[in-house]
Amino acid sequence: MIKRIGEGTIEFDEDVIIESSVGVAGKDEKQGPLGEYFDITFDDDRLGQETWEKSESALQTTAVQALLKKTGISAKNIDIIFAGDLLNQCISSTFGLRDLKIPMYGQYGACSTMAQTISVASVFIASGAADRAIAVTSSHFCSAERQFRLPIEYGGQKTPTSQRTVTGSGAALITRGCSGTKIKHITAGRINDLNIKDANNMGAAMAPAAADTIKRFFTDTNTRPSDYDLILTGDLGKVGSKLLKELMEGEGCDISGQHNDCGCMIFDPSVQDVHAGGSGCGCCGSVFCSYIMQKLSKHELNNILFIATGALMSPTSSQQGESIPSIAHLVHLVNG
Amino acid sequence: MIKRIGEGTIEFDEDVIIESSVGVAGKDEKQGPLGEYFDITFDDDRLGQETWEKSESALQTTAVQALLKKTGISAKNIDIIFAGDLLNQCISSTFGLRDLKIPMYGQYGACSTMAQTISVASVFIASGAADRAIAVTSSHFCSAERQFRLPIEYGGQKTPTSQRTVTGSGAALITRGCSGTKIKHITAGRINDLNIKDANNMGAAMAPAAADTIKRFFTDTNTRPSDYDLILTGDLGKVGSKLLKELMEGEGCDISGQHNDCGCMIFDPSVQDVHAGGSGCGCCGSVFCSYIMQKLSKHELNNILFIATGALMSPTSSQQGESIPSIAHLVHLVNG
Repeated sequence: MIKRIGEGTIEFDEDVIIESSVGVAGKDEKQGPLGEYFDITFDDDRLGQETWEKSESALQTTAVQALLKKTGISAKNIDIIFAGDLLNQCISSTFGLRDLKIPMYGQYGACSTMAQTISVASVFIASGAADRAIAVTSSHFCSAERQFRLPIEYGGQKTPTSQRTVTGSGAALITRGCSGTKIKHITAGRINDLNIKDANNMGAAMAPAAADTIKRFFTDTNTRPSDYDLILTGDLGKVGSKLLKELMEGEGCDISGQHNDCGCMIFDPSVQDVHAGGSGCGCCGSVFCSYIMQKLSKHELNNILFIATGALMSPTSSQQGESIPSIAHLVHLVNG
Repeated sequence: MIKRIGEGTIEFDEDVIIESSVGVAGKDEKQGPLGEYFDITFDDDRLGQETWEKSESALQTTAVQALLKKTGISAKNIDIIFAGDLLNQCISSTFGLRDLKIPMYGQYGACSTMAQTISVASVFIASGAADRAIAVTSSHFCSAERQFRLPIEYGGQKTPTSQRTVTGSGAALITRGCSGTKIKHITAGRINDLNIKDANNMGAAMAPAAADTIKRFFTDTNTRPSDYDLILTGDLGKVGSKLLKELMEGEGCDISGQHNDCGCMIFDPSVQDVHAGGSGCGCCGSVFCSYIMQKLSKHELNNILFIATGALMSPTSSQQGESIPSIAHLVHLVNG
């Protein structure tokens, strides 16, 4: 059912599929190039809530409830949910999902969480530990600004390398099945730390982690970039994407023909003030669970690598002079 | 290999074992009733670090390195590590483990994290997704006070229902094997929320989650309390333990003959100023990975339930008037 190949890639013989998925997003994301692809969008990023943290919780609630509705499955028939987010103690997930009464293992991988939740869910499904699992994550521009930088009311200025946290959520239903988009391989990331300390340049901090995981996957599977339709990173943004391509090229592996990045895709920098692009768990969460999954189900994409990257720092660690350790988890998806 | 029984308990046919484990603890824990059982203790809770957060990271580093040394396995032969802690963005884990270069999926279950990391690791091992996995968690009194309450320098007074966060860490190596302590079942917790809002009474907030998981496990496995040598909760403390027994008794299920709680065991309230007992991921982490695992390996215990409980709030959610959602994950261990 499950076999380990190479140094650390997990291969599924059993047909583990993403049966369905939902991406929800906020106002600015709706106005971006992928606006029409999101399953649900909000014109008011408050979502009718009193605080930004509660707004973010509502994003997750909305995504999961829409997924249940779309698939016609009730919450009590979901065996397990893997959820995580960027907020302290992952409160978007716990408060967003508490009323569903689904058994839950909370996940933390910073912005890599979407790939992590799908990965861990896929092992539970392939092994029979669960028949139906949901993977979900979220982020919100205003809760993230308050958490990691400054409350938006301060009107702080951003550096050109900074990224804009996406207001959005992605939820995917992982099951066993013979048709649909299969999860063929997963590769868990290792922490990389090249001593980058600029919390306004997350892309640069995360690029080495993405390069590490992608290289390990190619070695483990004995494949190369041209074998794939798309090599999609989570939220490296403009700066991190450039650096990733350079790092890979330095290793003799040119991914420039296949690479794209959710953080570069979700906004249009020519008309939207987003500096180096989008970021946050909800960035690749919403893009992957809507636009990319739609492309896969229409067979416009058939064989892709999804690598979500996470910066594993906190404001406290940065204040204490620490660098930014990063991680990237990979999911290989194919149409059967 | 893995089968689901009842409403949500996972049973392992394959022999998934805890091959070895290490519990490390601080000064007060050393002076408590279990002091002699910890593998490593520290007389200075700073562990030679400049900040409490770095001290907590050092606890995890120490626990994992001691586990590798004890088992003679190098870090590169560990397939995956499941780690989590209480600090914002789980920095004790990421900074404590970054130099090991082991693939990692970060976990967040608040004080339930030790049972969660063992549970998720056991599915990876039973399914063949990994051959060797480490489950690890930590907490530190001083970093937790600063994070969740007030910096210790303020000398704030505590209520009698409050618990003292344990300075400690537990690490366990999960593998397949035919001898040793087996992981027979796991039951993932569901979020329970009885609208308790007092962040100084975590035991009361968490007891309903423990009761929910334990009842579901008994129903799924068609067993009862007297079938077990010990029903060990994580860190309900004195107040929460009493409430759990009352809740279970109200359901016609008397666990008072088998129940104990790591938070009640780790300190001696007659001589240590710990109010309602110990708490934190490192509480059941250090107690389970040292004292309890030693009892199991000596066959003084042979069939136990380990239920770690977590309070899924943050200071922000409490300040916004939210209640404290809780969760409890169960691991059933038997000597083969």
